[in-house]
Amino acid sequence: MSMWKKREEREAYSGWRRIIRKRFELPDGRLVDFDILGAAHYVTVAAITQSGEFLLVKQYRPGPEMPLISFPEGAIDDGESPEQSARRELLEETGYEAGKIVHLKTFRSSYTDQLQFCLLATGCRKIADPKPDDDEFIEVFSLPEKALRQLLSKPQDDTFSNVGCGYLALERLGKLQP
Amino acid sequence: MSMWKKREEREAYSGWRRIIRKRFELPDGRLVDFDILGAAHYVTVAAITQSGEFLLVKQYRPGPEMPLISFPEGAIDDGESPEQSARRELLEETGYEAGKIVHLKTFRSSYTDQLQFCLLATGCRKIADPKPDDDEFIEVFSLPEKALRQLLSKPQDDTFSNVGCGYLALERLGKLQP
Repeated sequence: MSMWKKREEREAYSGWRRIIRKRFELPDGRLVDFDILGAAHYVTVAAITQSGEFLLVKQYRPGPEMPLISFPEGAIDDGESPEQSARRELLEETGYEAGKIVHLKTFRSSYTDQLQFCLLATGCRKIADPKPDDDEFIEVFSLPEKALRQLLSKPQDDTFSNVGCGYLALERLGKLQP
Repeated sequence: MSMWKKREEREAYSGWRRIIRKRFELPDGRLVDFDILGAAHYVTVAAITQSGEFLLVKQYRPGPEMPLISFPEGAIDDGESPEQSARRELLEETGYEAGKIVHLKTFRSSYTDQLQFCLLATGCRKIADPKPDDDEFIEVFSLPEKALRQLLSKPQDDTFSNVGCGYLALERLGKLQP
């Protein structure tokens, strides 16, 4: 495996997101620059109610400029563990309290230092009204497992943004036979 | 569903990646700014050889500063369809020619205008040596279906970056019974 050597790193942009410009020495000795997105790590929570339905949120998203559907998710606050963050985001966005939480997997991608922690919360029950952040206008709904599976697999759907986490949740629940 | 109204948009940073600063009017009338990552659309190709193994590539990635494993993938060139791009990337990165290609799904995410097209290529056969781009130093290998499934689902692995596309490929191939 050819490793690269980092030679320089500087903040090239700082706003609501950050760009870190990194210079690497490639295995053949050439120097190449990359812009890396700097953003807080976040959790995505596949959450199942006591009656067995998956909790989903739908909200307008400023990147694609259209509503997207996702599991409850959000940035991890300073000092929080991924599980603590998952419990907080689930409660804030949906009003549901998580029962048991397990870690499904952590996703990295090529051009960001951001981590996405995927978790599964089972036995969730409604204990409050949603209290979303100031800039969130969220529609909360739930789907039975079969309808979630259809949403995950449907080629025409481009509105669900947690396909990997969804399949991992079904896998952990023993719903995908090998 | 509460829609937002875009009031302004300007390029806030331009380098190897772009940042677009967008100002939105929220449903309650407040104005909020977001930084949106601007990057070319790209394809991810779950490719299966004629002997039934999945083609994978492993390369050092400048965001996490470690090697990641993925399906062959890359930016769509001007004028290319996702299928054309998938055939080109597969051939360049692995030396394999795709047989049949089908579209699995298109992923959007909240804070980028970039689209990820996931495709499945079957019946792939080796016709050349890999010819990766100048800054790619790629290790090509293949895994049988069972080993790919383990890589997808293993909670401890944080090196595989196409979990959603991998499950969609297995789903389309009829390998995930409901």
